[in-house]
Amino acid sequence: MRLDALAYAQNHQSEALTDLQALLRIPSISTLPESQGDMQRAAQWLADKLGSIGLQNVKILPTASHPIVYADWLQAGPTAPTVLIYGHYDVQPVDPLAEWLTPPFEPTVKGDDLFGRGATDDKGQLYIHIAAVEAYLKTAGQLPVNVKFILEGEEEIGSPNIADFIQTQLDLLKADVALISDTHILNPHTPLIITGVRGLAYMEVTLRGSQHDLHSGAYGGVVENPLNALVRLLASLKDEQGRVTIPGFYDDVQELSPAERAALNNGLVTDESVLAETGAPALWGEAGYTTVERKSVRPTLDIHGIKGGFIGAGQKTVIPAVACAKVSMRLVPNQSAEHIAQLFIDHIHRIAPSTMEVSVEKLNCSDSAVVDISSSAVEAAAEAYEQGFGRRPFYLREGGSIPVVGLFSHLLQTPVVLMGFGLPDDRLHAPNEKFHLPNFYRGIETVIHYFDILSSKRR
Amino acid sequence: MRLDALAYAQNHQSEALTDLQALLRIPSISTLPESQGDMQRAAQWLADKLGSIGLQNVKILPTASHPIVYADWLQAGPTAPTVLIYGHYDVQPVDPLAEWLTPPFEPTVKGDDLFGRGATDDKGQLYIHIAAVEAYLKTAGQLPVNVKFILEGEEEIGSPNIADFIQTQLDLLKADVALISDTHILNPHTPLIITGVRGLAYMEVTLRGSQHDLHSGAYGGVVENPLNALVRLLASLKDEQGRVTIPGFYDDVQELSPAERAALNNGLVTDESVLAETGAPALWGEAGYTTVERKSVRPTLDIHGIKGGFIGAGQKTVIPAVACAKVSMRLVPNQSAEHIAQLFIDHIHRIAPSTMEVSVEKLNCSDSAVVDISSSAVEAAAEAYEQGFGRRPFYLREGGSIPVVGLFSHLLQTPVVLMGFGLPDDRLHAPNEKFHLPNFYRGIETVIHYFDILSSKRR
Repeated sequence: MRLDALAYAQNHQSEALTDLQALLRIPSISTLPESQGDMQRAAQWLADKLGSIGLQNVKILPTASHPIVYADWLQAGPTAPTVLIYGHYDVQPVDPLAEWLTPPFEPTVKGDDLFGRGATDDKGQLYIHIAAVEAYLKTAGQLPVNVKFILEGEEEIGSPNIADFIQTQLDLLKADVALISDTHILNPHTPLIITGVRGLAYMEVTLRGSQHDLHSGAYGGVVENPLNALVRLLASLKDEQGRVTIPGFYDDVQELSPAERAALNNGLVTDESVLAETGAPALWGEAGYTTVERKSVRPTLDIHGIKGGFIGAGQKTVIPAVACAKVSMRLVPNQSAEHIAQLFIDHIHRIAPSTMEVSVEKLNCSDSAVVDISSSAVEAAAEAYEQGFGRRPFYLREGGSIPVVGLFSHLLQTPVVLMGFGLPDDRLHAPNEKFHLPNFYRGIETVIHYFDILSSKRR
Repeated sequence: MRLDALAYAQNHQSEALTDLQALLRIPSISTLPESQGDMQRAAQWLADKLGSIGLQNVKILPTASHPIVYADWLQAGPTAPTVLIYGHYDVQPVDPLAEWLTPPFEPTVKGDDLFGRGATDDKGQLYIHIAAVEAYLKTAGQLPVNVKFILEGEEEIGSPNIADFIQTQLDLLKADVALISDTHILNPHTPLIITGVRGLAYMEVTLRGSQHDLHSGAYGGVVENPLNALVRLLASLKDEQGRVTIPGFYDDVQELSPAERAALNNGLVTDESVLAETGAPALWGEAGYTTVERKSVRPTLDIHGIKGGFIGAGQKTVIPAVACAKVSMRLVPNQSAEHIAQLFIDHIHRIAPSTMEVSVEKLNCSDSAVVDISSSAVEAAAEAYEQGFGRRPFYLREGGSIPVVGLFSHLLQTPVVLMGFGLPDDRLHAPNEKFHLPNFYRGIETVIHYFDILSSKRR
């Protein structure tokens, strides 16, 4: 059965690519109000596709914002394991658009790579599971495991509605393993199982200094400029050692044991590899920690954008009435994202100048999560990677955030497997995002192996 | 002759308004590359208008960027004084567009005010001179003085070509007084002669941290974020006393004598008036100086915009590859703008982090200038204001910058009269810029008086 499915997948690579390109053409940017219609279109496209390959109970389930697509195939029998496949069909904004070499929503193949927004994050990776299921159903007419798809449209805005959804659908989502392909491997030939993700608290700080924009000649020096005040405030949030200065920020951070640190510093991520991936002239970070520690088990704070005044070509001598900053903090076990968000809010109000009206908004909170790598579901993933890529995977803690990982663990009590197929240089969230097509095809084969190995482990 | 001209002006207010609205409809934003055609249209509109009312030698003179409109009327005879009338037909950008209550380039009358970009700065004020000249020529067929118009299209970008232009046209521009209406009066009934303007050095600082935008999960904490680095760098440019920290910045600043300080603190500008004009919750500025000193005789530094990352609705977890800030410094006698710009460039390179590629660009430099209020040209202006407004003007140093003021004084050796008709709350450079129409009409009458008084003083 597995061999037929593999042959089908190998013989239908161009169809899978064509299908993925159709999905990538839909500009489903969840954070933009004007993308509402495209979010619906993407959900409908997925529901149609899932139905067309033989999945059942296909539903587009509404949430307070973007819908969740559900579908299942549960005829493998009660003793067969049930795999809950999670993916997200929403994508990041495309700014700065001018830096894209090909249009972000006209997916373009160049050499071995497919370029387009969402190519790797996460439309390309979620489509791997659709293609794997299709290969089994089109050849054997059945799967060796039960599967449930849950494809959400809000991951890039922090999955604000998924916790409520899971809590009200505990029976519908019941499974033996949650399988997520939304991470990366080490290089095109070396698979990687991600063993933990950081949490996130995403905040917006707004300072208002006057009732309308002012001429900097007439008022420069007498009315505090919100941009001047904002940079002072933001600069104070990190000290010279790269530590976040918000009181209480580190109180709950889990420090690793020497053995855990040694395991983490396994040489997979090196200063050289990070320099090569980013093109940065030098690395920088919290004193006392290695690069791999800084990017996985240490929390941090980043500014994502500052709004206010004039950023067009040339010059405008304006003191803006309002300045606004987007700031996020990546969090680690055992930091509570909600608690950290509140510490941030309290701190900003405490240090904000009296010359400004200050407001702080919490845009998104998600907790960090750690994967239990001793579970049989993870061991099956390691074996499947070995079949698909010809070598055993490595294990690595990651710095990104996937809100649903912690929720699946805590609310569903389901072990999570983070089986990614992206590459570190896929430029996710950036211009010229891509997906390495050999990994797309190997990914489909790896998931075919995974279903089979998981099923045989249970017997 | 004066009475006929005044009557003509009073009987043709609605024609003057209609004409001004036509000029305001041309979006001549000098800093935007895409406004090139509109700059030409505005220059042509002015040349046509000046020709149609009887001015001679009308020329559109090219510069390295936007053209200068010249026209004259020199038949008052060799003993009559010659007035060089300067104005600028370029305007500031309209950002943030969403805050305009009426479209910026559809001039709209509401009550006594005319709303639109350039209404007060400077199209409305330059049109006052056109209407005054028209009133004389349409009634008497002649003027009591010789006039030369020089209308430039680059004031809002710091007049980068006007110094060269003046130096190559010393004969053409020779005059006894340079008259500029590009400032404000105290309130609708109280005229004001501006006695000095600040200089300006406008800079752009760019930090590049990586070769492409990065995912803040994957790289947050290991690669320095250019926005984090930029806020730290910008915040360090002012200390807690509101003083600029660039070494040497204050070295050449002219300190006022106690008598000069007493004269400056004449009660015209009060904390209450500034609070009312701006709607700021509190004032703020350099320790040791009063509000009026801070806004006129003290230099300062303002951030005008910060580019990089994401400022749309919602969230994007990006570490931008590049962050860029627009920063200007207002300068006072005897600071050299070119020297201060170099100090700024040197300082930024000295303090910039080694994790970034740094570049600093000088966008614009202009020196401060002080007006000699003992000249007969200024005394004539005071008398003209008294005729037009029914009261003597006050005198005030201003905080804004008009590059040409210093150039007329130094290159042409011509005394400058800053005879403004705007109001402090005209929102120049901001959304909903306006011009108070009663001042527009009083301005035309005041300039008619000015020509006559100036002519009789010379006899």
